Amino acid sequence: MQSDMRTLEWDEKEGELRLIDQRLLPGRFEIVTCASVTDVIEAIRNMTVRGAPAIGVAAAYGMALAARQLSFLDVSTMRAELYQMADKLQAARPTAVNLSWAIQRAREAIDQPVSSTEELREKLLSLAHAMAEEDVQVNLRLAQYGASLIEDGDTILHHCNTGALATVDWGTALGAIRMAHEQGKRVHVLVDETRPRLQGARLTAWELQQYGIPFEIISDGAAGYFLRSGQVQKVFFGADRVAANGDVANKIGTYMLALAAHINDVPVYSVFPTSSVDLSLQNGDLIPIEERDEEEVLGIQVQGQPATPAGARARNPAFDVTPHTLITALVTEKGIVYPPFRQHLPEVLQR
Amino acid sequence: MQSDMRTLEWDEKEGELRLIDQRLLPGRFEIVTCASVTDVIEAIRNMTVRGAPAIGVAAAYGMALAARQLSFLDVSTMRAELYQMADKLQAARPTAVNLSWAIQRAREAIDQPVSSTEELREKLLSLAHAMAEEDVQVNLRLAQYGASLIEDGDTILHHCNTGALATVDWGTALGAIRMAHEQGKRVHVLVDETRPRLQGARLTAWELQQYGIPFEIISDGAAGYFLRSGQVQKVFFGADRVAANGDVANKIGTYMLALAAHINDVPVYSVFPTSSVDLSLQNGDLIPIEERDEEEVLGIQVQGQPATPAGARARNPAFDVTPHTLITALVTEKGIVYPPFRQHLPEVLQR
Repeated sequence: MQSDMRTLEWDEKEGELRLIDQRLLPGRFEIVTCASVTDVIEAIRNMTVRGAPAIGVAAAYGMALAARQLSFLDVSTMRAELYQMADKLQAARPTAVNLSWAIQRAREAIDQPVSSTEELREKLLSLAHAMAEEDVQVNLRLAQYGASLIEDGDTILHHCNTGALATVDWGTALGAIRMAHEQGKRVHVLVDETRPRLQGARLTAWELQQYGIPFEIISDGAAGYFLRSGQVQKVFFGADRVAANGDVANKIGTYMLALAAHINDVPVYSVFPTSSVDLSLQNGDLIPIEERDEEEVLGIQVQGQPATPAGARARNPAFDVTPHTLITALVTEKGIVYPPFRQHLPEVLQR
Repeated sequence: MQSDMRTLEWDEKEGELRLIDQRLLPGRFEIVTCASVTDVIEAIRNMTVRGAPAIGVAAAYGMALAARQLSFLDVSTMRAELYQMADKLQAARPTAVNLSWAIQRAREAIDQPVSSTEELREKLLSLAHAMAEEDVQVNLRLAQYGASLIEDGDTILHHCNTGALATVDWGTALGAIRMAHEQGKRVHVLVDETRPRLQGARLTAWELQQYGIPFEIISDGAAGYFLRSGQVQKVFFGADRVAANGDVANKIGTYMLALAAHINDVPVYSVFPTSSVDLSLQNGDLIPIEERDEEEVLGIQVQGQPATPAGARARNPAFDVTPHTLITALVTEKGIVYPPFRQHLPEVLQR
């Protein structure tokens, strides 16, 4: 990406987390600095940083910042404070399980025996670094598995943003498309604009331009037209949380897209790191769905004019659940999982 | 509607057609004046006036204006000129059949014996007046049939704009909802914003506010969430052209909506005047689909900033086809039509 900046980077000199401000792209490329865990919570909540893998790693750095912020009397006081911060971080966004997963790993680190507050501080920062590096490696592997499903000449319909911006680097579903492109396969992408936050129109389009992959933006409602008329070979998207039966919670609109693809015999692939899997939930209907501020729907403008009447209200669920029956395969860094997912998903996780 | 202005009105004193400018609502309520058939063609093309029934009647007034614009040497010269104008008007938008239907009625009027150019001029204006009045009466009848399908307490999901603004007055699918409301039934409407032109967010929301009907705007991609979670009792939309088998061409996004409703056992109703039926087409795949300027997709703004990167391209089909198998019933001014549509639709047309 621009200036070789990763989506999130640790500034060793200042002891701060630097994030690409994803709210401003593609118009402006700006960096936001988080000097405290509170800054990180706010950045996750207001979607300065978004994408399930990216918010997981951001949360890990949030814990590292929490450990650095205060001088603690002793290790046990420090642990108590950090537990509180972990709870707050975890509550920032409810649907993506990567946030809980990252916090859980931080909690395990906190519980390990240490001889000083300084050692615990170092341990949490090392963990965040390791998770950031691991995310890049995991994405590279799952992108390779995903790319193996893409054929030369494919037109791929893609929802939301699952690229480098949704992760530390490289990406999940969009990473697979980028990998196929770098392998020399000719791919064409139809980019769902992905209302209301327009992550497709803003972020995926911006990334595809940088990678030199040809694409066209479409309204979300137009996907059915292209699927039904045989112009799409594959549908790719990410995941915010995957239940034990393979149901996938992902950005709002994914369910209708997967349904239209399935009914028209177009393969549907959900691409995600295994950290997005939540085997504790038997099916997707148990996944909590975040409902965000209605202003995200109402604040749309056309030619500088508001496109909704004053006083209008909106509903704004940020995610929906795609039943596993609509999904052809789940793509993870440990391999491609085919149905029955309830049987094969735990097997792949144990690899 | 505001100032009791109809969507389109003939100004007797000036000999001009007056249209509510639907591109500016809800921000500004302005009237556009068409003094020539060329003005009418442009107003249809740029969607100053839109909605299948409304563009049919606008075209009839366009023919009346064509007849008034020039002083013709004789009736046969006049007929030749009018035929040319009829062709141009008909080409303004390809999908809605009401435009062709209105032009066809004007052609029949042109072909009738007259004793002077003045008589032909009067005949075309009378025809336009009759079609405008007929549209209001037809809409009232189909709104009554549609309202009979709505129960007290229903939440109805509605796509695009099918209200008074899409017709001369009253409306089709939204007319049915309004009628149910006036009959004292408590209805709640989930309004698909309907990208890219946002007719739902801009026009349907504005109309519902005026009628005092409670509603919430949603992103088009969110419809599946509400349908799957059992929060919707009925789906209502209009039609731009209906084929002999009951396939319905309607605003882009309708197909995915109907599919998600059908799969979740939510009844799907398409409401339209019989002038939207085209029995000459055996199925919906034969209906020409207009692809509009990509700027309609790319020109979206959030907080005054462009939401797509410079140089990005878009695809913009304005309509899609909903297969008849997804539709519970077709609602016309001559009655409610149930499957098999290929058998029942011609029967109802002959009433």
